[in-house]
Amino acid sequence: MLRLIKRVSKKTGLPPGTPVHIGEKKIEKTRITIIDYDKDKFQQYEAEKIEECFPFKDTPTVTWINIDGIHEVEIIEDIGKHFDLHPLLLEDIVNTGQRPKIEHFENYLFIVLKMLYYDKEETEIKSEQVSLILGSNFVISFQESIGDVFNPVRDRIRNGKGRIRKMGADYLAYSLMDAIVDSYFVILEQLGEEIEHTEEELVKNPTPETLQAIHNLKREMIFLRKSTWPLREVVSVLEREESPLIKKSTSIYLRDVYDHTFQVIDTIETFRDMLSGMLDIYLSSISNRMNAIMKVLTIIATIFIPLTFIAGIYGMNFRFMPELEWHWGYPLVLLVMVAIGVLMLFYFRKKEWL
Amino acid sequence: MLRLIKRVSKKTGLPPGTPVHIGEKKIEKTRITIIDYDKDKFQQYEAEKIEECFPFKDTPTVTWINIDGIHEVEIIEDIGKHFDLHPLLLEDIVNTGQRPKIEHFENYLFIVLKMLYYDKEETEIKSEQVSLILGSNFVISFQESIGDVFNPVRDRIRNGKGRIRKMGADYLAYSLMDAIVDSYFVILEQLGEEIEHTEEELVKNPTPETLQAIHNLKREMIFLRKSTWPLREVVSVLEREESPLIKKSTSIYLRDVYDHTFQVIDTIETFRDMLSGMLDIYLSSISNRMNAIMKVLTIIATIFIPLTFIAGIYGMNFRFMPELEWHWGYPLVLLVMVAIGVLMLFYFRKKEWL
Amino acid sequence: MLRLIKRVSKKTGLPPGTPVHIGEKKIEKTRITIIDYDKDKFQQYEAEKIEECFPFKDTPTVTWINIDGIHEVEIIEDIGKHFDLHPLLLEDIVNTGQRPKIEHFENYLFIVLKMLYYDKEETEIKSEQVSLILGSNFVISFQESIGDVFNPVRDRIRNGKGRIRKMGADYLAYSLMDAIVDSYFVILEQLGEEIEHTEEELVKNPTPETLQAIHNLKREMIFLRKSTWPLREVVSVLEREESPLIKKSTSIYLRDVYDHTFQVIDTIETFRDMLSGMLDIYLSSISNRMNAIMKVLTIIATIFIPLTFIAGIYGMNFRFMPELEWHWGYPLVLLVMVAIGVLMLFYFRKKEWL
Amino acid sequence: MLRLIKRVSKKTGLPPGTPVHIGEKKIEKTRITIIDYDKDKFQQYEAEKIEECFPFKDTPTVTWINIDGIHEVEIIEDIGKHFDLHPLLLEDIVNTGQRPKIEHFENYLFIVLKMLYYDKEETEIKSEQVSLILGSNFVISFQESIGDVFNPVRDRIRNGKGRIRKMGADYLAYSLMDAIVDSYFVILEQLGEEIEHTEEELVKNPTPETLQAIHNLKREMIFLRKSTWPLREVVSVLEREESPLIKKSTSIYLRDVYDHTFQVIDTIETFRDMLSGMLDIYLSSISNRMNAIMKVLTIIATIFIPLTFIAGIYGMNFRFMPELEWHWGYPLVLLVMVAIGVLMLFYFRKKEWL
Amino acid sequence: MLRLIKRVSKKTGLPPGTPVHIGEKKIEKTRITIIDYDKDKFQQYEAEKIEECFPFKDTPTVTWINIDGIHEVEIIEDIGKHFDLHPLLLEDIVNTGQRPKIEHFENYLFIVLKMLYYDKEETEIKSEQVSLILGSNFVISFQESIGDVFNPVRDRIRNGKGRIRKMGADYLAYSLMDAIVDSYFVILEQLGEEIEHTEEELVKNPTPETLQAIHNLKREMIFLRKSTWPLREVVSVLEREESPLIKKSTSIYLRDVYDHTFQVIDTIETFRDMLSGMLDIYLSSISNRMNAIMKVLTIIATIFIPLTFIAGIYGMNFRFMPELEWHWGYPLVLLVMVAIGVLMLFYFRKKEWL
Repeated sequence: MLRLIKRVSKKTGLPPGTPVHIGEKKIEKTRITIIDYDKDKFQQYEAEKIEECFPFKDTPTVTWINIDGIHEVEIIEDIGKHFDLHPLLLEDIVNTGQRPKIEHFENYLFIVLKMLYYDKEETEIKSEQVSLILGSNFVISFQESIGDVFNPVRDRIRNGKGRIRKMGADYLAYSLMDAIVDSYFVILEQLGEEIEHTEEELVKNPTPETLQAIHNLKREMIFLRKSTWPLREVVSVLEREESPLIKKSTSIYLRDVYDHTFQVIDTIETFRDMLSGMLDIYLSSISNRMNAIMKVLTIIATIFIPLTFIAGIYGMNFRFMPELEWHWGYPLVLLVMVAIGVLMLFYFRKKEWL
Repeated sequence: MLRLIKRVSKKTGLPPGTPVHIGEKKIEKTRITIIDYDKDKFQQYEAEKIEECFPFKDTPTVTWINIDGIHEVEIIEDIGKHFDLHPLLLEDIVNTGQRPKIEHFENYLFIVLKMLYYDKEETEIKSEQVSLILGSNFVISFQESIGDVFNPVRDRIRNGKGRIRKMGADYLAYSLMDAIVDSYFVILEQLGEEIEHTEEELVKNPTPETLQAIHNLKREMIFLRKSTWPLREVVSVLEREESPLIKKSTSIYLRDVYDHTFQVIDTIETFRDMLSGMLDIYLSSISNRMNAIMKVLTIIATIFIPLTFIAGIYGMNFRFMPELEWHWGYPLVLLVMVAIGVLMLFYFRKKEWL
Repeated sequence: MLRLIKRVSKKTGLPPGTPVHIGEKKIEKTRITIIDYDKDKFQQYEAEKIEECFPFKDTPTVTWINIDGIHEVEIIEDIGKHFDLHPLLLEDIVNTGQRPKIEHFENYLFIVLKMLYYDKEETEIKSEQVSLILGSNFVISFQESIGDVFNPVRDRIRNGKGRIRKMGADYLAYSLMDAIVDSYFVILEQLGEEIEHTEEELVKNPTPETLQAIHNLKREMIFLRKSTWPLREVVSVLEREESPLIKKSTSIYLRDVYDHTFQVIDTIETFRDMLSGMLDIYLSSISNRMNAIMKVLTIIATIFIPLTFIAGIYGMNFRFMPELEWHWGYPLVLLVMVAIGVLMLFYFRKKEWL
Repeated sequence: MLRLIKRVSKKTGLPPGTPVHIGEKKIEKTRITIIDYDKDKFQQYEAEKIEECFPFKDTPTVTWINIDGIHEVEIIEDIGKHFDLHPLLLEDIVNTGQRPKIEHFENYLFIVLKMLYYDKEETEIKSEQVSLILGSNFVISFQESIGDVFNPVRDRIRNGKGRIRKMGADYLAYSLMDAIVDSYFVILEQLGEEIEHTEEELVKNPTPETLQAIHNLKREMIFLRKSTWPLREVVSVLEREESPLIKKSTSIYLRDVYDHTFQVIDTIETFRDMLSGMLDIYLSSISNRMNAIMKVLTIIATIFIPLTFIAGIYGMNFRFMPELEWHWGYPLVLLVMVAIGVLMLFYFRKKEWL
Repeated sequence: MLRLIKRVSKKTGLPPGTPVHIGEKKIEKTRITIIDYDKDKFQQYEAEKIEECFPFKDTPTVTWINIDGIHEVEIIEDIGKHFDLHPLLLEDIVNTGQRPKIEHFENYLFIVLKMLYYDKEETEIKSEQVSLILGSNFVISFQESIGDVFNPVRDRIRNGKGRIRKMGADYLAYSLMDAIVDSYFVILEQLGEEIEHTEEELVKNPTPETLQAIHNLKREMIFLRKSTWPLREVVSVLEREESPLIKKSTSIYLRDVYDHTFQVIDTIETFRDMLSGMLDIYLSSISNRMNAIMKVLTIIATIFIPLTFIAGIYGMNFRFMPELEWHWGYPLVLLVMVAIGVLMLFYFRKKEWL
């Protein structure tokens, strides 16, 4: 449940713009990593104190300040003060219950995204909030914990692969968003395999566990949808709206991300449709089985109940029962019984129960 | 039912603009509380008569007049006359069956909201109508009864926490709306816990009570939706539309409230999806149980009915039944019976009924 | 069915603009009532001939001509000629199968509405078509039969209550529309009570009649929706569009009617949701009952079938059955039987069937 | 199935604009009928050759050229050449799988409609494609076969009834469209009666045939929707868009047709809702019947199985069974049996199974 | 599953604009075919090296370069460099998991489509991605494998049939799109026949295989929808948007394609509705069968269980049972049994179970 609604009671009543960390504390100490680069230079190091990253605000090089851990609210507030960030924005960064969204401020863009990863132990998709602040020559990213999907981006910057070193901060922000959306595909693949597996099970031998699996997959879809629909809006706004922070050459890449989010949503919707169909199959397979059981019961009962009745007749102790005295009485009765049984079987065959 | 449709028959036929109280009378006597403040000053007191609050209309300080109780129509009409409020607006204030809405008048904005609280005794969400009138330097709020979610706002004004004392009446109105939307999260948390609890029950031991619980939760969702969708529109209109009463510095805070209402709606929709899934699970668990019962019955019946028939055969009183005279007849028949039983069991195992 | 689609075959093939009465003939003779008023004067009388109302067309006073009965097509045509009404409009007035709609003509507005009332004998909502023609200083209303929801409006005009006498024809038209929408609430209340009643029945003792009741309520909702959705559009168009016939002071009242229609629709949708939920409950309560019946059958059968089999064994007439000769044979068998029965009961308790 | 998708394989691969007849050949020889009229003159005759209608292209009178039969592609092409029609348009005329649509060309409008009629033999709605070409003073209509719903229009032209003789070609086109939409109501009436009939059957005695009837009606609705939704768009475009070919005096009549298509759609949607409700009723009536059957079985079985067991006990052949020797043993046992039976009946009554 | 989501993990982390082939490798060696034509000339030949097609870029004739096979990324990159194609576009060409889409670049249009064909062996619809690049006088098409639906277009160019030789590159692009959409109809026909066949089966003798067939058809519909809805958007954008690359004379042909995609979608939606209805029929036919089985069981059991009980009574060994000594006891009991049986049958007939 915690995945779906964050506990917010501790926040109720505070003045707006008060940053209060909402969510799990996933890391001990906040870690600050600075990557600074332009076409020619590149440096990366871990900052001890938050103040170390302030000088990069106005340098012409592109600076990426990555903050892992958002529970130490004072650090967030320090950054906010130095980079002139709006208090409501700081509040959103530390409240992990945000929907993906984009907000335009005078000197920067604020983007909230969800980074998804598949928790194999709990067989559940988990999400981590990533907030990006895009200034004219810096990007600040906030994550809940260490470990992300940005390593390929770091590699590309370090090695100067692709055009990233030649482009500005907007391209860096795009690259981070692209990495996040890319990681969605990995999750969709995993879910796709699970759906395929469940479907096979459904055809071969559906059990209540199959139903549970379908139900769980449906819940994952609900969870995924909640993250991706607003994401699509975010990217769409970014692509369409004119902002001095987004250069035209980057805008075309955002259209590409937009296409990807669309593919993600498309696949989610397709999965949802398939899961609905699988539920129908499951329910009717239960009915079919019930039918099979009923048939067996009915065949056995309708054959033997009349026969038992006949046996009962000749088990009666009336003094005057002429049949009992006949020499061929017993075999005759057996014959009648067999005849009835065979007739019944023919009847069932005609009814296509056999 | 009263939650869903207010009794309006007593109103039918009156000229429009006639304020008639519709709803429960939740309080004995109307209570009027005045809070007046600016950056430096702060005073709060309870007014005996409604006339006491009239002088505050034109002072430069921000004044918040809070009216608890809306059944004394004359008081509402007095306020209406003094503050130049439109008769239709007065009618809306006392008719508690309004949808959340916003209306622009020349000198003030009129906002109707629903304050929700969870009635633990009736395990139902209850709603109370809150009407706000935002003038250039005053806010008048109307509530159905004493007791609200505004105490944190009052505290912030009193203690000068946050920026509320430095901002105008529009920020006060925003703060009240924010407090109301915040309280929705508390209710969603409670419902979320109930859903979680019901879901566990569903997996462990679903009973008709579980179904009833799912059904009740669904009804709560219907009720919540009815309040929150129009709320979203209200906030959206407030944020987007240009109004001289809303300063630009406040507008950004309204965007924040808008985000929150969106989160509320998102969560409601997610809960609805989950409850639908739970209903499916419940229905198929009933089917599964039926299946299990049928299996036991069928196994017992199909094993013993033929055996009883055989016993019946040798219970017949025919004079000439050679088997009866055999020395090993009885053990032989027992053996045959055991053999049939074992065969049956093998058959059921093959069919995976065991 | 007649409620849902009007018989139109007799019209097929006629040139457009030919007024042909479609619908039930609900009244013997057309009744024409004229109310003429301004701030100071008021007169009301019944006209013998339609010509009596022609002089009022160009007087400065506000005139309300109410026509009860639309089957005498010649009268409608006479009015049409004198007031310069478009032939298609006349056709719409007498064809009671219209959707609520509004049409703008050069000198007047044409509004079609549905007046609803609850027919207690047939326990069905019935509708009557009301057509309004709003000119610069007159309103002509056409109804299918005598008896309407406009008496409060008439009273207000007569007594000069509210502002109606001071306002123009547009306010009169608004008042009539308001009266109609108000009457919808009365119907919703009645349906709300029926839903409540049916829901109680559903919890206590659902019978096939409960299902029928749910089904009937659903049909009423379909019927209501068909009338109210287009109504909302009509009012919305009226409120938003600039028309010289609607003064700005009246426009604010139309916004109020718009809010009301929205409340009506909201309530209908909520009722629909609730009825769907009730259907689910009903269906699963049937399943539950089936389960209960199956359990009893299975318990009885699985306990006694094996016991009967044992009795059958010792009812066999084999000559050599040592047990039969034992002195304690009979009590022993009884003991065994009791033991089996008790074991079975324990098994069922473990399975939670008891 | 042929109703839903036309066989198009024979067309695949041809260059666009190649007219290929797709659909059933419903008529032997193409029939060409020319009606030419103005306020004073009127002539109607059947043309032997297509060339006979060419002179009418530029006369000031209104000319209606009606072509019955579209399988003789050369005739269509001749018309196309003479009247300067676009090749794609010709292709659409002879391909009967079109959706209703409207296309604007420089000198004419092209409208495709579906004429519906109820085939009583196959109890199915059939459709015939009608294509209209509206020029400045002529209308060319293409139909698949002889027999249509336009006779009333012909009569009106011949007799000079209504305003048709005084108006231009646009009014003629409107009249034809109006006639088609009118005929939809006739079909809706028939379906309405069938629905009513099926509903009665459903309440009295639902059989699998009732289900089949509901299913068939649902299919008819799917078919009807497919024809009417695009029709509404066509009429809407015609009404709203400015075209020199449509005079303003005709435009108001198109609004009337638009209202009618809206009524048709409304009724279809209502019927769909009703049919869904009927399906629910049907399914739960099956469940109810199953319940009733199960009850009878369970009551009989649970009463007699224990009694039969008791009889079995005293049918055992143990030598030492004291009860058997009692003088009142037999009546006592009978008494016990009656007592058990009566107790059972009380139990069932308490459970409300009786 | 591979049909629904392409494996993209190997791409994650690469810089954007890196073309990586995603999808099955369906062909050994890339094949390049060049068709060059204008009104008078025509030449077609297979190129050995990609460089052979570069000269055609700036000739005034229309050139169609068709690439079969997209796994040799270097070739794609060569084309990209020579024709100045954006790197992201190249990436899209080789990633076969694209949605149909259109993108506007300065000197060319980029269109992604899905070519569908029915794989009879796997009884599944398969799709192949076709990318088109439309320049001012050339079209480059990329396909996954040899074999396509473009042969009729090739024939028309070769033979000069239709207007294709007289028109420009935009008409060629249109022709290719038209050929693809045309091929959808062939698939719809096949599916339509399958649906028809399944429906017949459903009425005659529904088996679990019928359910599986319905389910599979539903999945095909999900797959088709995923391809056609975005296709419609693509064509709609092409038709509406002004682009110097699309001449007005071609635009009218695109409207035709748009109509066709609409027909495709319409048919898919209709099929979906029909399949839903068929599922309902299937499920209720299972219930009906269960009912029939239950009836037989109940009738047999309720008739014979009481009779067997009576037989059991007179099988008891009490010493004092007066009936047993009666001379007519046995026939009397038989008579009573027959009477009970007949009564039961009457009861069942009254209940309409027989």
